[in-house]
Amino acid sequence: MLKLNFNEEGLIPVIAQDYRTGEVRMLAWANEEAVRKTLETGYAHYYSRSRKELWKKGESSGELQRVLEIRVDCDEDALIYIVEQEKNRACHTGERNCFFRNIQGERIEKPLPFEALPRLQEIIQRRLEEKPEGSYTVKLASEGLDKVIQKFGEEAVETLIALKNREKGEILYETADMLYMLSLALTLNDIDVKEVMEELIKRMK
Amino acid sequence: MLKLNFNEEGLIPVIAQDYRTGEVRMLAWANEEAVRKTLETGYAHYYSRSRKELWKKGESSGELQRVLEIRVDCDEDALIYIVEQEKNRACHTGERNCFFRNIQGERIEKPLPFEALPRLQEIIQRRLEEKPEGSYTVKLASEGLDKVIQKFGEEAVETLIALKNREKGEILYETADMLYMLSLALTLNDIDVKEVMEELIKRMK
Repeated sequence: MLKLNFNEEGLIPVIAQDYRTGEVRMLAWANEEAVRKTLETGYAHYYSRSRKELWKKGESSGELQRVLEIRVDCDEDALIYIVEQEKNRACHTGERNCFFRNIQGERIEKPLPFEALPRLQEIIQRRLEEKPEGSYTVKLASEGLDKVIQKFGEEAVETLIALKNREKGEILYETADMLYMLSLALTLNDIDVKEVMEELIKRMK
Repeated sequence: MLKLNFNEEGLIPVIAQDYRTGEVRMLAWANEEAVRKTLETGYAHYYSRSRKELWKKGESSGELQRVLEIRVDCDEDALIYIVEQEKNRACHTGERNCFFRNIQGERIEKPLPFEALPRLQEIIQRRLEEKPEGSYTVKLASEGLDKVIQKFGEEAVETLIALKNREKGEILYETADMLYMLSLALTLNDIDVKEVMEELIKRMK
């Protein structure tokens, strides 16, 4: 195990990054005991500088973080916990992560590119649960998996034609259409987009 | 602009996160001047605790970070710089990011799910540049865009059949095949995967 460089207070900063979406859920601090407890239990532990005590994330809120891996930086003075976030929510304000504003104080509304597919699938899942009036996703799903697969096939063909035409705008538009239909079809098959990504990663050398 | 809570040394921790891949490139510190310079110039500035000076990332190495957004956490005591990383490399060790080892000291070889598509495209680009002997990507590309598009179409049909069969393993396998062919076709069209994701995000409400 790597020797960590704790600061003069015996602490090291920890970034909690989501395994599925890549979003930074929070930045907190750990002492040696918190790191040890995290390794022992598989759940994120931190050290609260205000309460001056060891702290298991989510112990009262249920917003537990299962830690899949701990990463260490080049100087051994910062950590990343790669986490699966219970309740898909990590911030005490009720937000999904603590970094929900930019420096101008504006709320961040849109995901970043690497978050696009997992966040799209979350939207699809929410639509299918809540069935809001006028939702295209709900309408399509109500017509059944065959209809969704047919639409996916149509969008794949349109993507193919766009690629053949070498028209950038058309390619982006049709590929996005196709990925939406694919995401819906995967969701109806109870498959998480991350599982497709895991399959891709397995093949990487 | 939000008021930031600098610590007793006048510093705030900054996570540099890549806009395209989502990887955490590094964790560093900023003082008020570094944040101001970052906002003014659009390039990441930090404060070096060892050299006790303001520091423009990449000034000597060329590994500049263009900052697209600064995010602030709920307690206003941590920042994220969302960056585009010059040279696709950020660590003084020559690694792409500073978190290249796990706590056991082992090198991290595989990307995480949210990194899969951008990292796959990097591999494809590298193969097309370096043309290593025996590479399937190089062989396919040498047969031309029509051949790649044809393969994409075949894999889309196989994905469609797998979805229809509701066979999870088959769906994951064929979808991964299709996404590989799509990534190759996009690369041959000089389209970055992130541009497709931006198109998807534009549509999100």
